[in-house]
Amino acid sequence: MDKAEGRSALKAVRGGLEALTSAMSYWAERTNQFIEEALRLKEDAPPLGESAAHVFKGGGKRLRPFMALRACEAVGGDAEAALPLACALELLHNFSVIHDDIMDQSEKRRGLPSVHVLWGTPQAILAGDMLFAKVFAVATRGPRLERLPAATVIRALNVLSEAAVDICVGQTMDMQFEARLNVTEEEYLRMIAKKTAALFRASTTIGALLGGGSEAEVERLAEFGEEAGVAFQIADDLLGLMADERELGKPVGSDVKEGKKTLIVIHGLDRASPTQRRSILAALGNGRATSIEVSRAIAALKDLGSLQYAAERASEYVAAAKRALSGLKESPARTQLIQVADFVTSRRF
Amino acid sequence: MDKAEGRSALKAVRGGLEALTSAMSYWAERTNQFIEEALRLKEDAPPLGESAAHVFKGGGKRLRPFMALRACEAVGGDAEAALPLACALELLHNFSVIHDDIMDQSEKRRGLPSVHVLWGTPQAILAGDMLFAKVFAVATRGPRLERLPAATVIRALNVLSEAAVDICVGQTMDMQFEARLNVTEEEYLRMIAKKTAALFRASTTIGALLGGGSEAEVERLAEFGEEAGVAFQIADDLLGLMADERELGKPVGSDVKEGKKTLIVIHGLDRASPTQRRSILAALGNGRATSIEVSRAIAALKDLGSLQYAAERASEYVAAAKRALSGLKESPARTQLIQVADFVTSRRF
Repeated sequence: MDKAEGRSALKAVRGGLEALTSAMSYWAERTNQFIEEALRLKEDAPPLGESAAHVFKGGGKRLRPFMALRACEAVGGDAEAALPLACALELLHNFSVIHDDIMDQSEKRRGLPSVHVLWGTPQAILAGDMLFAKVFAVATRGPRLERLPAATVIRALNVLSEAAVDICVGQTMDMQFEARLNVTEEEYLRMIAKKTAALFRASTTIGALLGGGSEAEVERLAEFGEEAGVAFQIADDLLGLMADERELGKPVGSDVKEGKKTLIVIHGLDRASPTQRRSILAALGNGRATSIEVSRAIAALKDLGSLQYAAERASEYVAAAKRALSGLKESPARTQLIQVADFVTSRRF
Repeated sequence: MDKAEGRSALKAVRGGLEALTSAMSYWAERTNQFIEEALRLKEDAPPLGESAAHVFKGGGKRLRPFMALRACEAVGGDAEAALPLACALELLHNFSVIHDDIMDQSEKRRGLPSVHVLWGTPQAILAGDMLFAKVFAVATRGPRLERLPAATVIRALNVLSEAAVDICVGQTMDMQFEARLNVTEEEYLRMIAKKTAALFRASTTIGALLGGGSEAEVERLAEFGEEAGVAFQIADDLLGLMADERELGKPVGSDVKEGKKTLIVIHGLDRASPTQRRSILAALGNGRATSIEVSRAIAALKDLGSLQYAAERASEYVAAAKRALSGLKESPARTQLIQVADFVTSRRF
């Protein structure tokens, strides 16, 4: 490739990424509007509406709706008709965010105090419950839904509710792992398949179903979502150790203090010298660990190559996600799904 | 009526009640079986399955499914086909029971320790969430559902999810009322319409929808459910003061100690002499009130005629519920719905 060709290729990539960024912004805005309307309660219980809406205020890329809408288009469907179910996915994600923050006693989320910090645990439980209820309320009524075959909508709702069951199973495993030091990589992968990847899988599955995709197309997009979801969680674990607090929206190393058994920690504990192990264990699961102790634990994990290892595994899952789409016919939507898969591990633009 | 006629009428009533009791037992058993199967998780997260199943172990009459199934039959429908949605109503009820017990810090339910007492708050939140997810999982898949028009199922799911939103609104109001002494009867009625009656209304509405009822029939059965639901809640408040602990499955007067503004308390506070008011306020919202203080508060409410007043109001709602069914054509299912309405205020056989 000569210099001019190189410049032109770079320009094409940049153009592609600009198109992606602009598409993501457009649909994030549409998603936000839809959800804002859905959460406008007629009833006079102000803290409920406010506390449920709060979790959307810290931003967020609305990745799951975007993936659903693009999956819908990738099989030739109409994204407009899929919007309610796509927003339902975002509502479901945010329900789990509110409840997870209670369970994990996380005090910050997306740069803002968590719902339970501002409104107390009882109201935060209800805020999450209300979002959960709205998941199915928005997905069962409205003019857009009438454009879709009812049996397909029911199948999509089943995918959505089974993903919600999976999220509960995954969160249970995640909490149980906090009390253990011998969690294996295989156990971790089973846990995040439920806790995180299930909803990504549901997103692309639902998009493909509502778009009228063939069973083979639905299966390919489901697999894409799942592999991308696993990559997303590993990258999220990495970000929790590497980003700065402002970027992260919560303190660096929170996962370590909560005792989360991320791939990084599992890899590190498996290979640590007694000294490194002591450094890791001084912070791991120690809610009162100082920031120096946390930094030392992260440094030990870095020295052990655990961050590098996790980054490589995430890249493998991204590659697998992209392979899953190889059988799908070319389209702008398919291109953007591939870009999103790259995006989930970089998370930097 | 001579003696023989009297005996025969009494026998007919008893026969009717026996038929009701036996039908309720039959469907409670079917509901329990269906739910037990639905909660059998393949995944290895034992505390999740166990904690979610626990709440069903303390018994319970499965009143909501029964009302849904009878409403279905009352409009000429097939109760078998409605069973999944009927069980979804019971799952939804029990989800809210688990979360309410966390929020209200209630330590006993149906004679057993609450889920959060046995498994801790984080796991109890998840147990509730999982039941909520299962509400929609069981209502969107299975051979029975295929017997029903898909568009009707979606409409029923919308009724179900809107009832779930209402439950959250009602519980928020209920908690806010705990901090106030000037709650009015009208506010109380709006609160229980959401917190309790919405799910009864949803039960009979969904039954009527799935049974293929006309809009007028659906509306009558919806109203029946709502009026019966209001009566149920008032009767439940009464039972919480009058029953003994063994019958109640939790300590007598728990509501008073939690500061719940029941119709009884609202009526009493409105009419109390300064001395009576002091007796009531010594226990109301005082988590550490002694059983003597609770008894004194209940005695004051009794003297004020507040228990009697609540019982009368409950009877009025039962009468209104029955009137709503008067337009519906005679059937054994309709007869049993009427008996159920009487049952909710007696709760003694």
